[in-house]
Amino acid sequence: LVKQYEAFAEASRTVLGIPDDAFSAIKKQITREEVRAITLAKLRLCHDMVLWDIGAGSGSVSIEADHLMPNGRIFAIEHNEQYQDFIRDNLRKFQSRHVTVVEGEAPACLELLPDPDRVFIGGSGGSLWSILEVVDQRLAVGGRVVVNAITLDTLAATSEFLENAGYAVEVTSVNIARTSPTTDYKMFEAFHPVFILVADKQ
Amino acid sequence: LVKQYEAFAEASRTVLGIPDDAFSAIKKQITREEVRAITLAKLRLCHDMVLWDIGAGSGSVSIEADHLMPNGRIFAIEHNEQYQDFIRDNLRKFQSRHVTVVEGEAPACLELLPDPDRVFIGGSGGSLWSILEVVDQRLAVGGRVVVNAITLDTLAATSEFLENAGYAVEVTSVNIARTSPTTDYKMFEAFHPVFILVADKQ
Amino acid sequence: LVKQYEAFAEASRTVLGIPDDAFSAIKKQITREEVRAITLAKLRLCHDMVLWDIGAGSGSVSIEADHLMPNGRIFAIEHNEQYQDFIRDNLRKFQSRHVTVVEGEAPACLELLPDPDRVFIGGSGGSLWSILEVVDQRLAVGGRVVVNAITLDTLAATSEFLENAGYAVEVTSVNIARTSPTTDYKMFEAFHPVFILVADKQ
Amino acid sequence: LVKQYEAFAEASRTVLGIPDDAFSAIKKQITREEVRAITLAKLRLCHDMVLWDIGAGSGSVSIEADHLMPNGRIFAIEHNEQYQDFIRDNLRKFQSRHVTVVEGEAPACLELLPDPDRVFIGGSGGSLWSILEVVDQRLAVGGRVVVNAITLDTLAATSEFLENAGYAVEVTSVNIARTSPTTDYKMFEAFHPVFILVADKQ
Repeated sequence: LVKQYEAFAEASRTVLGIPDDAFSAIKKQITREEVRAITLAKLRLCHDMVLWDIGAGSGSVSIEADHLMPNGRIFAIEHNEQYQDFIRDNLRKFQSRHVTVVEGEAPACLELLPDPDRVFIGGSGGSLWSILEVVDQRLAVGGRVVVNAITLDTLAATSEFLENAGYAVEVTSVNIARTSPTTDYKMFEAFHPVFILVADKQ
Repeated sequence: LVKQYEAFAEASRTVLGIPDDAFSAIKKQITREEVRAITLAKLRLCHDMVLWDIGAGSGSVSIEADHLMPNGRIFAIEHNEQYQDFIRDNLRKFQSRHVTVVEGEAPACLELLPDPDRVFIGGSGGSLWSILEVVDQRLAVGGRVVVNAITLDTLAATSEFLENAGYAVEVTSVNIARTSPTTDYKMFEAFHPVFILVADKQ
Repeated sequence: LVKQYEAFAEASRTVLGIPDDAFSAIKKQITREEVRAITLAKLRLCHDMVLWDIGAGSGSVSIEADHLMPNGRIFAIEHNEQYQDFIRDNLRKFQSRHVTVVEGEAPACLELLPDPDRVFIGGSGGSLWSILEVVDQRLAVGGRVVVNAITLDTLAATSEFLENAGYAVEVTSVNIARTSPTTDYKMFEAFHPVFILVADKQ
Repeated sequence: LVKQYEAFAEASRTVLGIPDDAFSAIKKQITREEVRAITLAKLRLCHDMVLWDIGAGSGSVSIEADHLMPNGRIFAIEHNEQYQDFIRDNLRKFQSRHVTVVEGEAPACLELLPDPDRVFIGGSGGSLWSILEVVDQRLAVGGRVVVNAITLDTLAATSEFLENAGYAVEVTSVNIARTSPTTDYKMFEAFHPVFILVADKQ
């Protein structure tokens, strides 16, 4: 009976494109739905992959990835306790099936996780370089790393590390602005630019 | 036996994020993968919806939508014969299951199609206003129209029509630039800005 | 003696590029220095032109235009009293020579002004259409109108009016983001997109 | 007599905002007029400064800077012979008064020039680091360097050098798209994003 209900829920659920304000989150910090959509596309997920979501924040990327991977295993890594609460709220709300919250600090907490096919880094809490070292060791050949950088410092460091490690690196600069359907005038509000770095292990 | 092969193919296939150059298309005209990802997210597809893809071009939106809707019915409407060939090539290549090519000109050819839950307009061949009239008649309450406008004229006309018809309208301005992983220097190539208009029938 | 002092001040003064925070203004509403620079370039000012600055706000465009036109006559039109105070503060601060504050509402207050060679519309207070009608009547052939639109509504209406009136219209979409030199990390803050419409009377 | 003609020419000449296609140049490589306007504003020129324009290309920045500095001394440094021809054509066409073409490679050719108040680097021909070293030695305290970077590599290297040398560094990301007044439909053509780095010697 529960199973049938779940199947029904899944069929009538949006597969991709959860609006920003549907998530429990700090409103100004959430990855915007447009950036999240590009990020998910860049991750090139298959049905049964292992995804590490490092610096998961509100968990929005993990939750949408879960919708795309019927047999995936997703690890939402977050050490900020307030954010962990947001993630748990959101996992419940969106009935996520295959997302595990990892409460701890990367890279230390990555040790016990299965090797990833895909890694998304949305935040690194000051340990970017050592996280990239572990990611590089654990990621299989053919695997892919996606990093959303909002500072030039993160962009430059990530790019330098991954190019030196022999990855093919592509950067997409994303400038998005959006009008609100609730105001009379269509005035654009700009979101902060994001650089989405994609690196393939060859 | 065929069925098992298909299931295997599906499991190992990328769910979202086909690179631009994997499609048969006129290279300069294809909807870029980043814009396509946002468009698909804005369509808020569920598992079993009916999607009209008007001005389907190379069929890239239909094909990625097919991956997202296990029980969807997608109609790729295109009257340009060269583009129809591209669509058929791409449907074969990506083993699309539920996409029907509609060879004809909108809005005339829309008459025989089932009512849509979602409508994407990527091109209108000069008949924008009459297409929007038919879309408005046929779309169910709660349905959604997404229009990718590359001219201010299309943006202004679509916006005017849908607001007058009582839809809640949101516009996202998308400015994307991308470096190439094959060059030594990471120089950004900008894609033409796209305005993604989303309208909900209330 | 005064004259010498002035000449000295002029020589050591920045000709173009006053930083945003040097102006008395409502911080979030000032035309950003990058947008102002483009606006001034689009105005194609000569040494002795008449410029109407309609909806002058803090007066920043008038003040920088004054630096560019040794024999210009600039009319900063603003009906908001708080903004008029800002303009007067700024005119004093930057020793503007040829800027007249016009306290009143356009288009009514335009009647007594000399015919313009250039018109900049930064705000229209809901009277856009009637302002454009007067501008069109008074602007000489070869004259130029520049409009900074932050809403699609203003952009579409201005574009429609001026194209119907036979002007050659060009629109520049400007997406700017800037890091702060005072923070440790170089994180970009995006400014709201502006559409700069340029129209030449033929 | 000549003097009067010049004075007349100056008065009726556009002070700022030369359109791109008025310059002799390789069309795809010219600094776009919007980017040029921001660059000039960021240079914060005064009437009598010394400006080094390193990698002058078509000379467009030097020529517009000359219009802004009645007593300036501008050195347009360019080692590509084809570009040198473009510069000379453009200097003649726009009756530049104070621009000297320096035919040679930076940093070697900088030795004989007077110390700069402002330095603009539009291209570095692979010698970025050694150019920055000379610029840093020669620039007075209170001086300013502006660099237009079109690659992340240039942006990261310039930023690293100048921050380590104690400069206050600001980066502006500029995404511009423009419609053409000669087409029926207003479709935006995007220009490649430029990062304008500004550094103040303290």
